[in-house]
Amino acid sequence: MKIAVLGTGMVGRAHAARLAELGHEVVMGTRDVTKTMAESKVDGMGNLPISEWLKNNTSVKLSVFKDAIENGEMVFNALSGQVTLSVLKSLESSIGGKIIVDISNPLDFSNGMPPTLFVDNSDSLGEQLQKALPSSKVVKTLNTTNAQIQVNPKNLADGDHHVFMSGNDSNAKMIVLDILKSYGWENIIDLGDITTARGTEMFLPLWLRLWGVLKHANFNIKVVK
Amino acid sequence: MKIAVLGTGMVGRAHAARLAELGHEVVMGTRDVTKTMAESKVDGMGNLPISEWLKNNTSVKLSVFKDAIENGEMVFNALSGQVTLSVLKSLESSIGGKIIVDISNPLDFSNGMPPTLFVDNSDSLGEQLQKALPSSKVVKTLNTTNAQIQVNPKNLADGDHHVFMSGNDSNAKMIVLDILKSYGWENIIDLGDITTARGTEMFLPLWLRLWGVLKHANFNIKVVK
Repeated sequence: MKIAVLGTGMVGRAHAARLAELGHEVVMGTRDVTKTMAESKVDGMGNLPISEWLKNNTSVKLSVFKDAIENGEMVFNALSGQVTLSVLKSLESSIGGKIIVDISNPLDFSNGMPPTLFVDNSDSLGEQLQKALPSSKVVKTLNTTNAQIQVNPKNLADGDHHVFMSGNDSNAKMIVLDILKSYGWENIIDLGDITTARGTEMFLPLWLRLWGVLKHANFNIKVVK
Repeated sequence: MKIAVLGTGMVGRAHAARLAELGHEVVMGTRDVTKTMAESKVDGMGNLPISEWLKNNTSVKLSVFKDAIENGEMVFNALSGQVTLSVLKSLESSIGGKIIVDISNPLDFSNGMPPTLFVDNSDSLGEQLQKALPSSKVVKTLNTTNAQIQVNPKNLADGDHHVFMSGNDSNAKMIVLDILKSYGWENIIDLGDITTARGTEMFLPLWLRLWGVLKHANFNIKVVK
């Protein structure tokens, strides 16, 4: 498939590389290509500048958001939660009825660590996104584990752990399910409509504290039943 | 130990019976003994009237909250989240410096199912309880799984799943740890101080949606790491 991956950070890179490896035609989207390509520093998380990363991932293209989306059949949202709504709303006409795989979390870092949530309880960022772009098909998934596990679940305990999915459109979820399976996911729980994104987004406060205790992010949860 | 279990519902009964089975001297606390004993109907969850239940659990006594607490060396809070703060605050002088094992969740059923949380994000019921009773030692635990698994974790996947613990007092957590182990828990994660109760309380929205999908409550999560 032709897939747009929005965001050039750790999550966007993980998905862009993995999707390209699986044979998809991937265009990463960014706000300003010249500015993004001009970045020359290793970021706070130890990531190479994107210009260097692209040299190692030659099948992935970089483009402005609009072109990436218009070229794609579906959109992966790997932007930070804080810019997700404003950026995607501004691209509504390009997105149209496409599937948005929403991996973002509504994390608010303004009060220090661990971050709080800027949407919670009787709402979720997934729902807000679906409401803001009513023609699109938002599927919230993968937001409960780190980027490396998201794209290569078998690298942890041979995949014996779970990922969740929320969305209003059954066909969209079937398509996303196939991509999750191609990543290596064998334990996928469809929680229901997009309101169930409240459950996975509100899992983040526990995830963040487990991260604090375990001192690494290479973990996930398994639903033992 | 002498243990007070506040609440005569499903959670209180599970702990009272299990603690008595383990050799503890258990007094269940209720608001009004005469009224509680006069209940004659099977409740909405299929639980027998407490008077019947006590006939099958003869080593467990029933008393008013105050007497149960004053007789006990520690307190299990198995009250509903919605009455937890008001009831426990009214008993502050009886509780004094005792450990409160807080199993409650801040669930608000007034907006229908699934319930929302009445405390969340930058606060938790565990923290509110610790602030309301500053001399007490609140240990939040067990609130992430159902009552039967709480007291008999080995009945699910031979105990291969996790329970969490939050609290400010290390000695209190050591004592609660021993009780958890005596229940059969082998995988116990100390998340840190009582603010980490935000993590486990905010897990409930995901728990509730998993319950909806799985159609039973006999599940728990394992942290795969």
